[in-house]
Amino acid sequence: MFTKDIYTARRQKLQAGVGNGLVILPGNEEIGMNYRHNTYHFRQDSTFLYYTGINRPGLVYILDIDNNKEIILGNEPTIDDIVWTGPLETLQQQADKAGITQSGPLSALQPLLDKALSAGQTIHFTPPYRADTTAQLSGWLQIPYAQVNSRASVTLIKAIVAQRAIKSAEELAEIEKGVNTTAAMQLAAITGARPGSSEIEVAGKLQGIAISAGGNLSFPTILTVNGQILHNHFSETIMQEGQMALCDCGAETAMRYAGDLTRTFPVGKRFTDTQREVHDIVLQAQLAAIAALKPGVLFRDVHFIACEQLVDGLKGLGLMQGDTKEAVAAGAHTLFFQCGLGHMLGLDVHDMENLGEAYVGYTDDLKKSTEFGLKSLRLGRALEPGFVVTIEPGVYVIPELIDMWQAKNHLPQFINYNKVNAFRNFGGIRIEDDFVITGTGSRLLGNPLAKTWQEMEALK
Amino acid sequence: MFTKDIYTARRQKLQAGVGNGLVILPGNEEIGMNYRHNTYHFRQDSTFLYYTGINRPGLVYILDIDNNKEIILGNEPTIDDIVWTGPLETLQQQADKAGITQSGPLSALQPLLDKALSAGQTIHFTPPYRADTTAQLSGWLQIPYAQVNSRASVTLIKAIVAQRAIKSAEELAEIEKGVNTTAAMQLAAITGARPGSSEIEVAGKLQGIAISAGGNLSFPTILTVNGQILHNHFSETIMQEGQMALCDCGAETAMRYAGDLTRTFPVGKRFTDTQREVHDIVLQAQLAAIAALKPGVLFRDVHFIACEQLVDGLKGLGLMQGDTKEAVAAGAHTLFFQCGLGHMLGLDVHDMENLGEAYVGYTDDLKKSTEFGLKSLRLGRALEPGFVVTIEPGVYVIPELIDMWQAKNHLPQFINYNKVNAFRNFGGIRIEDDFVITGTGSRLLGNPLAKTWQEMEALK
Repeated sequence: MFTKDIYTARRQKLQAGVGNGLVILPGNEEIGMNYRHNTYHFRQDSTFLYYTGINRPGLVYILDIDNNKEIILGNEPTIDDIVWTGPLETLQQQADKAGITQSGPLSALQPLLDKALSAGQTIHFTPPYRADTTAQLSGWLQIPYAQVNSRASVTLIKAIVAQRAIKSAEELAEIEKGVNTTAAMQLAAITGARPGSSEIEVAGKLQGIAISAGGNLSFPTILTVNGQILHNHFSETIMQEGQMALCDCGAETAMRYAGDLTRTFPVGKRFTDTQREVHDIVLQAQLAAIAALKPGVLFRDVHFIACEQLVDGLKGLGLMQGDTKEAVAAGAHTLFFQCGLGHMLGLDVHDMENLGEAYVGYTDDLKKSTEFGLKSLRLGRALEPGFVVTIEPGVYVIPELIDMWQAKNHLPQFINYNKVNAFRNFGGIRIEDDFVITGTGSRLLGNPLAKTWQEMEALK
Repeated sequence: MFTKDIYTARRQKLQAGVGNGLVILPGNEEIGMNYRHNTYHFRQDSTFLYYTGINRPGLVYILDIDNNKEIILGNEPTIDDIVWTGPLETLQQQADKAGITQSGPLSALQPLLDKALSAGQTIHFTPPYRADTTAQLSGWLQIPYAQVNSRASVTLIKAIVAQRAIKSAEELAEIEKGVNTTAAMQLAAITGARPGSSEIEVAGKLQGIAISAGGNLSFPTILTVNGQILHNHFSETIMQEGQMALCDCGAETAMRYAGDLTRTFPVGKRFTDTQREVHDIVLQAQLAAIAALKPGVLFRDVHFIACEQLVDGLKGLGLMQGDTKEAVAAGAHTLFFQCGLGHMLGLDVHDMENLGEAYVGYTDDLKKSTEFGLKSLRLGRALEPGFVVTIEPGVYVIPELIDMWQAKNHLPQFINYNKVNAFRNFGGIRIEDDFVITGTGSRLLGNPLAKTWQEMEALK
């Protein structure tokens, strides 16, 4: 945990940001994998963690702004719990560390909410992403289950996003810890991937490293020789000489701050010449995007800078043609780069995603595009000092997509389909690092990790 | 997957076992860790897997016994899914492998259930253990959310338990795969635990091994120098010379059959003399229990055999005294062995736990005791050929429990409190292996793993 002053200041800022009403932040519960008591590893809700630091299931935090009161509710460990799970801190001991002076049993929650409802207080909550939280809010607040999500408080969402988007020095230090563990995972992947090893074998080791560092994975690992399949994770596939492996992985620290890095490297000792060329193209796109990071710049424009670099590179290979800016404006690059350049990073790997992209990545004035490619850009708004973002351009050659485009002869002025078809089994390359926006530009988070094809080949 | 004949035969047997009505088996859904799309690893419901073998979220299996029809419902992959996740089998292709000839979209579910409800068919479902399944059943069947659990079908539960309790040859082969991966995890723990290493460091490696073998953990790993705390998992605790580490871990295979083994071993190269003596006592209890395994014997009686062995051993150490059988009858052994001797093992590590211990571990005639100790015995009923069980006696010295008993001078005729207090920081030892009940006795599942203190010291 951070110091109690940090949590107290965060909650005071939240109180000021929301202005009035009553805020209810339910923490997460344990969830059964295949029966109730065989649970997944416990993951606290990130917003609950941000304001309380308490990493324990079964809690609810209430901030009654109208009456200037706060309380944390949960059940105390019983003597049975102590026999079975050892000595435990009381809830108040945990609350004290967050500067919350009042605690009580869960049974106090319903009367408290009933009183707030009958007094006509506005109740603020965030959109739930788990069914158990939805059921709880439905019961507590007498809202039909299907309507809970739509009754979430935009005022609360905006106040939370305004705070969590700007990372403090101590948060940056935690994220860097997560990034450095992630870098250790990447090194294990680069050195561990060999002709004859399986994807699962390497992916297993990476999760082991994340857990051994005191946290866990920040998201399910992607480790695949089919890097062009964007949401592929890992399988029993045996990796072969001549293939590239794409590894997109992340550790979260014990405090649940995330790292997120991607490298694409040869399974054997060397890339092929073509793989080296495309890797260089992606690297140039990443470097151009990084150079453009500074406060005030729209991240959407940084995305376009990367897209233009990709198009220039792909023109060099003969896969694309025509005017670069016109090609990007027409979306021709999305045959190879179907997704967005990056996203915010923090307590969530897609930071605050459950609060809604419209508030996290965009603003009331800058709405997300619905076009193919741009609809997958999670972040578009102007950068501010303290934002933490990933920069992760890529080139993905997806046979099914080529066939779809070619069938309707889509954008032939920019796409050289003959050349592209010769490339249809190329695969995919992505390069990703994490950055904080500073007062004048950006700073790489974590220790530098091998990135050029030369540096990665040197590790094999 | 097994062959389609196996799944077809299982469903035919289910149909005969339930007799009439309509059975609905919802598969599991993806669950968000910290936002909707950042999911835990997918774990299919074990009963759904038992009857269909299909390891994919978002499906519902319907067996309409009254009309002798079956269908599997779920949404087909879209072209977007294929672009993002690669070529996917259709639902009917997957269903075919299980011998299910009819499939349809999820939108067909509600009309089908409405028709069954209005025709007055009995709808059978098992008690849900996840909130999203509860909410689904509540909506589909028009049952208030809070009443779903109590409306589960005892007929269906009993029919499923009767089938799943008896493991076939191909299931035993899968369980043995899981046990052998678990043994590899144990070897890594025994050799990896060293003075100066942390619990998380070793625990992380074990999860890596389980994933690398193509499955995952069958339950959250217990790896701790505080083995007396029964539900301790692992922490950043640094292990020290002179301590013992207790490792209770399991792998599940790609088909989701579980292994479950426990070893307790020295952190350094050798046990102390006292640790060796207590380890021998636990081992003798385990061997006595194993020798007693055969069809027709109540598992509760096997439990008592182990308890008596433990008491005999503890009397030898001077910790207990008096007549052994009387001591066990009075529950005096529960100061050191607070839990049960074992449980069924299969697609769940506590097999079928969500179906209810009253049906899985006990019968209408043999109910579970509510006494301390026995209330934690998950299995009591008569053994049958094909049952797979764990045998896991232990000695756990829990200071808080000693203090509670001594404060009320509980059973002083059997407990030598002076001696016990000298032992209060001893810790805990458990030894666990997995067995199938054969026609005449039992058979160890998996390859033998180092078990005596001599064998374990030899590995250090």
